[in-house]
Amino acid sequence: MKASQFFISTLKEAPADAEVVSHKLMMRAGMIKRLGAGIYNYMPMGLRVIRKVEAIIRDEMNRAGAVELLMPVVQPAELWQETGRFDKMGPELMRVKDRHDRDFVIQPTSEEVVTDIARQELRSYKQLPKNFYHIQTKFRDERRPRFGVMRGREFTMKDAYSFDRDEAGATKSYQAMFAAYKRIFDRFGLEYRAVAADTGAIGGDLSHEFQVIAETGEDAIVYCPTSDYAANIELAEALPLLAERAAPGQTLAKAPTPGKSTCADVAALLGLPLAQTVKSLVLATDELNEAGDIVATTVWLLLVRGDHELNEVKAGKVEGLKNGFRFATIAEIEEHFGCKPGYLGPIGLKKPVKIVADRTVARMADWVCGANEVDAHLTGVNWGRDLPEPDVVADIRNVVEGDPSPDGQGVLAIQRGIEVGHVFFLGTKYSKAMNATFLDETGKPALMQMGCYGIGVTRILGAAIEQNHDERGIIWPASIAPFQVAICPIGYDRSAEVKAAADALHQELLDAGVDVILDDRGERPGAMFADWELIGVPQRVVISDRGLKEGALEVQGRREAEASKVAPAEVGAFVKARLSA
Amino acid sequence: MKASQFFISTLKEAPADAEVVSHKLMMRAGMIKRLGAGIYNYMPMGLRVIRKVEAIIRDEMNRAGAVELLMPVVQPAELWQETGRFDKMGPELMRVKDRHDRDFVIQPTSEEVVTDIARQELRSYKQLPKNFYHIQTKFRDERRPRFGVMRGREFTMKDAYSFDRDEAGATKSYQAMFAAYKRIFDRFGLEYRAVAADTGAIGGDLSHEFQVIAETGEDAIVYCPTSDYAANIELAEALPLLAERAAPGQTLAKAPTPGKSTCADVAALLGLPLAQTVKSLVLATDELNEAGDIVATTVWLLLVRGDHELNEVKAGKVEGLKNGFRFATIAEIEEHFGCKPGYLGPIGLKKPVKIVADRTVARMADWVCGANEVDAHLTGVNWGRDLPEPDVVADIRNVVEGDPSPDGQGVLAIQRGIEVGHVFFLGTKYSKAMNATFLDETGKPALMQMGCYGIGVTRILGAAIEQNHDERGIIWPASIAPFQVAICPIGYDRSAEVKAAADALHQELLDAGVDVILDDRGERPGAMFADWELIGVPQRVVISDRGLKEGALEVQGRREAEASKVAPAEVGAFVKARLSA
Repeated sequence: MKASQFFISTLKEAPADAEVVSHKLMMRAGMIKRLGAGIYNYMPMGLRVIRKVEAIIRDEMNRAGAVELLMPVVQPAELWQETGRFDKMGPELMRVKDRHDRDFVIQPTSEEVVTDIARQELRSYKQLPKNFYHIQTKFRDERRPRFGVMRGREFTMKDAYSFDRDEAGATKSYQAMFAAYKRIFDRFGLEYRAVAADTGAIGGDLSHEFQVIAETGEDAIVYCPTSDYAANIELAEALPLLAERAAPGQTLAKAPTPGKSTCADVAALLGLPLAQTVKSLVLATDELNEAGDIVATTVWLLLVRGDHELNEVKAGKVEGLKNGFRFATIAEIEEHFGCKPGYLGPIGLKKPVKIVADRTVARMADWVCGANEVDAHLTGVNWGRDLPEPDVVADIRNVVEGDPSPDGQGVLAIQRGIEVGHVFFLGTKYSKAMNATFLDETGKPALMQMGCYGIGVTRILGAAIEQNHDERGIIWPASIAPFQVAICPIGYDRSAEVKAAADALHQELLDAGVDVILDDRGERPGAMFADWELIGVPQRVVISDRGLKEGALEVQGRREAEASKVAPAEVGAFVKARLSA
Repeated sequence: MKASQFFISTLKEAPADAEVVSHKLMMRAGMIKRLGAGIYNYMPMGLRVIRKVEAIIRDEMNRAGAVELLMPVVQPAELWQETGRFDKMGPELMRVKDRHDRDFVIQPTSEEVVTDIARQELRSYKQLPKNFYHIQTKFRDERRPRFGVMRGREFTMKDAYSFDRDEAGATKSYQAMFAAYKRIFDRFGLEYRAVAADTGAIGGDLSHEFQVIAETGEDAIVYCPTSDYAANIELAEALPLLAERAAPGQTLAKAPTPGKSTCADVAALLGLPLAQTVKSLVLATDELNEAGDIVATTVWLLLVRGDHELNEVKAGKVEGLKNGFRFATIAEIEEHFGCKPGYLGPIGLKKPVKIVADRTVARMADWVCGANEVDAHLTGVNWGRDLPEPDVVADIRNVVEGDPSPDGQGVLAIQRGIEVGHVFFLGTKYSKAMNATFLDETGKPALMQMGCYGIGVTRILGAAIEQNHDERGIIWPASIAPFQVAICPIGYDRSAEVKAAADALHQELLDAGVDVILDDRGERPGAMFADWELIGVPQRVVISDRGLKEGALEVQGRREAEASKVAPAEVGAFVKARLSA
């Protein structure tokens, strides 16, 4: 490919609305162009990366036995009503009416449509297992689209759906997809982790996120450097940090803490370690009658150590909180605690409150909490002596660096990651809602066991850049770079020798199947080099009269500080060897 | 590919709503599956064809110097308001509001978005010419979707847009696309014609439709078998069929024609050739004031020979009718002609009427027309003697088979075709509306000259089948067949020899880059053969114990009545030779 036959459009400055580095660099490198909020044109340079990402995904999905089809972007609402998602989903589901006033959605995913296909096409156990996938345009009307392709509204996703006879089969399908995803992410050349994720109401442990490691990632991922353990922060189990509860050593006392409403302030004032304090969080659950009116409300006090954070996903697994909870109102808090927030605690309640203690809190002795009195805290608090044992003891906090690994193999570390893939066992959630059955060996109808497996194709670009960039621009892994090699001739128009050498190398690399671009735009060397560094092409070859005369052309990898000098006759072989390394 | 790892789903009967053969066969062969009116899932077998069509298009577009990008499916209404299409287009433009109540459209084409890209990115004459294309999902909310992928609502289209400095450049871009389209359609292996088409208000002669020839096609295409002339029926020029007007030979007379209101009936009653009669068609044009009220109406009488048909596109080019016309109301007709339709003519008018005679009618003598009196016609009518010369003489009729070719090289023939591609010079229509300018050599802003070039990707499938099928199913051209070869082993599970031979041939063909499927489903031979004939795979190899023993395996082309017997060791080479032939 010659640059003059392609389209290159780089910018010195990123537009002001680009907040994160990948967004800035994709705009500057001319990979995307904003059309509207969260809606981008994929410009030729960016589309080449997308196509390479898609090709790797397609190759490995096919290898894993999945079969590609293509489901529509615009889908009839009827199917979405069958599963209830048409009504349950918020405005992120883009709804549209046709000329006959019939409802449609612009697909954010395709569980409904693929289940509809399966219930019609997969009628016998002999046709199972089957895994259908497509790579298609999706739309989610995000409340606040941002970060370029990282949280856009229109995006490209690969979504696969497996159908099995039973859970054992579904587990095998899941594992095949898990293995395919590892191959896919290996081939992308990105540093990533497959982390266990919450399965929600489905249960079981068949849910993994594929997270691309990046300091700028929105997700916290937890792993054990000395074992295989890895989970996202929602799921990672926090073991109790104390082996057992110590005997009380202090008497219960009230300490004045004027204006100190946070654990950190109280600990500092009292000269105690933060780990001696306990944080109070007040939730509420409502019981509704059939008409949907609230007939009873329960107030809950959740206690976590002062240096820990509540994990709402874990809280949502506590018996009594499973069907949803909310934060209590100020009125409810004052009614039950006789005090405004900032000084709350489990002792001296005005009305009964359900007390849930984190595992670590349940083993603490001589701790500090609010006195249910403004500007006062209690010290030397002890379970059993000063208050009853908690109603519930549960893991309700986020793990922190240094916590023991749940597998007993070391301590936990935390990294930031960007979720770009998710494999998930769905069970019969959709097959039940849509009555997707097959005839089993005995001729009886049985519900299909399903799994779903997504990869955010366009998001991969953002994640790859967040992980791989420097002050000069993007650093693409070779497998997904828009071009693998940029030939930069100096004086292509002026020097017959330079032109001949550049054209010959271009042809030699093309013939070898290398994805090469010859920059024949006639830019000055500085601007030309800066463009290819910004765009992030892995290898650059500079062809100049001087280099040819001296028998030493410059080949420089994008991450290298210095160029290698290579004899002109050997440049082709040198570059090919680098790319196959 | 082994069939067990793919997905094959054939039907004995087509669903009742499938009206045309391509729709029926695509449903029966499991290529598409209906999701809603005009909305289809592309099943694995159909998607393979789509991908092959896309690959050929992409290859030739790139070769012609066009650059691929990807524009969004959901597009902000603002751009569509700039060109006025948001308001002007009817309900076939699918409009949608986002969560903030902002207007969007689901793209039917992308002129607005690509022009927006061009006006931002192409700032200098040095960047021109440039041709951007994408292959993307489109949506048109058709009033009556039908014929499967031939007139669906959601479909895949390749649309390209060229930007040039001037008309000479745009003409070159147009010609490059025209040549690329010919290569594309040649590679599809379809019989087609590039026919000149109407350019509407743009003018000039840079508009061609690529029509796939099929008896079932909706379009009439006109060509000259002894020259290059080809045009669609809207455009094809009708020359006058008479060299000059003969002198009057008859006197004007009134003939009673009770109940005979068509030319054919009148000719039969009077014992005259149909070509002696003249048909009257009454149109009206309204003059509006600034408030949009009608301030004046002109009634027009268009005259074509009794055996000819009015061509409304041509009529729309007559001075005075260019800004739109309508058919006259019965009241207007009675007011001007003093008679109801069926017996109208240009003689004895009650009020002034503009008379437009087709070129042939203007040269007729002694003709027959309505007498403006119920149940009566005039015979022996002659221009100049019985009525004034016509106000306008113009080509306003469709050509018919046997008409002289406008290029003087023979006579015209007519075929049916399916429009699957269109190349069109847009001029400054969009660049003017959206102010897409570039700086020319003198540093002054100038409007870009545009062209647009579409191919209906999914429609190609329907057109290919309409052209190539028989009573057993589809007959795909090899270049776009879902598979090129089907290996049909008889007793794959039972016979080790059959399995070994089938597996070996499968591998040999795969290694040679042949797109082959090995049918390991264990179907009985009859059902297996019927499936591959229905699906339309070009070559079939049957591997049986008997064939192996006798040293003669059966290779049969989809269009062949008999199989060729080929020695097992030579089957691979035989098939490869056939495919490369």
